[in-house]
Amino acid sequence: MSGDALRVPGAALRRFIAGVLAAAGVPEEDAGIVAGLMAEADLIGADGHGVFRLPQYVRRIRAGGINLRPRIRIVAERPASALVDGDNGLGHLAVRVAAQTAIAKARSQGVAWCGVRNGNHAGPASLYARMALAHDMIGLYLAVGSANHLPPWGGLELLLSTNPIAVAVPAGEEPPVVLDMATTVAAYGKVKTRAQRGEPMPEGWMVDREGRPLTDPRRAAEGLLLPIGGYKGYGLALVFGLLAGTLNGAAMGREVVDFNADDTTPTNTGQAILAIDIAAFGEVAAFKRRVDALVRDIRGSARLPGVERIWLPGEQSHLRREERAARGVPIPPPLRAELDRLADALGAPRLGGISGADAAPQIR
Amino acid sequence: MSGDALRVPGAALRRFIAGVLAAAGVPEEDAGIVAGLMAEADLIGADGHGVFRLPQYVRRIRAGGINLRPRIRIVAERPASALVDGDNGLGHLAVRVAAQTAIAKARSQGVAWCGVRNGNHAGPASLYARMALAHDMIGLYLAVGSANHLPPWGGLELLLSTNPIAVAVPAGEEPPVVLDMATTVAAYGKVKTRAQRGEPMPEGWMVDREGRPLTDPRRAAEGLLLPIGGYKGYGLALVFGLLAGTLNGAAMGREVVDFNADDTTPTNTGQAILAIDIAAFGEVAAFKRRVDALVRDIRGSARLPGVERIWLPGEQSHLRREERAARGVPIPPPLRAELDRLADALGAPRLGGISGADAAPQIR
Repeated sequence: MSGDALRVPGAALRRFIAGVLAAAGVPEEDAGIVAGLMAEADLIGADGHGVFRLPQYVRRIRAGGINLRPRIRIVAERPASALVDGDNGLGHLAVRVAAQTAIAKARSQGVAWCGVRNGNHAGPASLYARMALAHDMIGLYLAVGSANHLPPWGGLELLLSTNPIAVAVPAGEEPPVVLDMATTVAAYGKVKTRAQRGEPMPEGWMVDREGRPLTDPRRAAEGLLLPIGGYKGYGLALVFGLLAGTLNGAAMGREVVDFNADDTTPTNTGQAILAIDIAAFGEVAAFKRRVDALVRDIRGSARLPGVERIWLPGEQSHLRREERAARGVPIPPPLRAELDRLADALGAPRLGGISGADAAPQIR
Repeated sequence: MSGDALRVPGAALRRFIAGVLAAAGVPEEDAGIVAGLMAEADLIGADGHGVFRLPQYVRRIRAGGINLRPRIRIVAERPASALVDGDNGLGHLAVRVAAQTAIAKARSQGVAWCGVRNGNHAGPASLYARMALAHDMIGLYLAVGSANHLPPWGGLELLLSTNPIAVAVPAGEEPPVVLDMATTVAAYGKVKTRAQRGEPMPEGWMVDREGRPLTDPRRAAEGLLLPIGGYKGYGLALVFGLLAGTLNGAAMGREVVDFNADDTTPTNTGQAILAIDIAAFGEVAAFKRRVDALVRDIRGSARLPGVERIWLPGEQSHLRREERAARGVPIPPPLRAELDRLADALGAPRLGGISGADAAPQIR
């Protein structure tokens, strides 16, 4: 993060987002819920999925592309499953309901799976998988991405998205193990960041339409993202899309709406969440001890030359969250300026904040 | 497949395997079940996981490493979950019970997840995910591999296995979509095959202990497999292992026994299977039509220069199964000789078969 970035306490960031959403017409309670999840995305370091998305969400709201009074409801249900219809409301709302439903059902059934249709972009995948942790459950989340950037293996047409998976597993004394990954080598947001900074991409992120390596991020629109492990990542993107999209009657393949380019067509975004109650398989404390032991074995194991530290999935997010909870979320100046313009246009309060140097004492 | 390979009808292969297992002391019913699953592995083209494994299984049985009279039972249960204890019996038996239990529970609960502990090597992942298909369900299977070949990202110690995932999704007129993949770029069996053939490996499969590309498969023992997508594949191998191993109280990390090198220590292998009843989310016929349409969109989409055909996951296995069901399973001469010696040593009938040229008419 830039040293010049404004540092904003998480609570202030949440209030700002809620104020902007409310000024855009989102009912107060929903605005508070979405703002809390977006601010949490910034706290865990998912910078491309938190307040950074607010201008786009507001643009979509103002274009009429979001239902501000959604009737979010379960349209199909069994004891261990549910299908949640998001009624084209803000994406976070429906996935939160799905996660809460899965957790409640898993408590009695052992395991539960809830799908979402008629949803929208809902932020980082780990946000929802993590919801299971406080209940001593394992969370697994899949989503259909909100724009197609990936062709089938050997193909040229962008029929697939970077369909992500997140898995969150509670530990005892150690931070939870939280994997959150796109099925492409690079998420599309990383390509955009390189373009903004004027930096080339490494070979292996994208190819051009002849299959040659593409390293100039300004040419990304003519390129194809590469899946992890070649045909394997293609396969993962496809089956995750079948589970999070097709199974729910949500968009998949050609049906996926590019929400960056189109502010009005309902996206019918699909997501899925699985909750597993650890107590259904044995003693929770014993499980957590085994996870701690595994984490420590991995962290303390021998390293390749030049490697400083072996990280567990989610460990860097965990440390970032601790640092940002103490010092605030860094907001780079260009984003700050954009957020000021957004607030001004809506007549909402601007983002308060404190400079990096002064942050820690003022937050206490 | 070699043109000189003996072609053996699937039913004859199954009878041969059952006869060898029974001669090694496996009760007749169990021998028939395991033989059916092993022959099915050969029919779908998982050549490294079918009859190829029989000598190793028998070696383990004769060394006392397998419980021939396992009491396979559910040791923890909720309406949508179960933990199956395989009692150190042949691996196929416990995973089959877990899959059948998951399918039966999903029928009423919508979704169900069953784990296995005290299991053993159970053949190809897709075998069990596929069991859901006939019930109009989606199957998802995870396993802890039976030997550690993968270090954590940045590490040198082989703390992880190639922990595979399989997902099987039914279609209507199209073959089902069936993904079956290890979380490493190459499964270890592929390395062994290269060594047998004296062929080098491509860069990207393995590195040596300095992190340099290793392409000589005869040096595989000093090398490290590489995960797909770098830290992403490491993360997948880890969380799949937590779900299939740690959650079930099965081996994970340092606890994993190398079943190639050790014939007697109980492996405590862990597996997990999820069944999703499509009818719990909507009309099954409509789902299958959507899968068909997606499959056709992908197969018919524009291709990169030089690409002959875009494949769906599982499509090549599907075609191979049709071909082998008609013409028999090819058994290369060295494997045939090994199987003859095995049968002779146990006093079991040898593998019957017919040559490739004569196969089709005789099978009818």
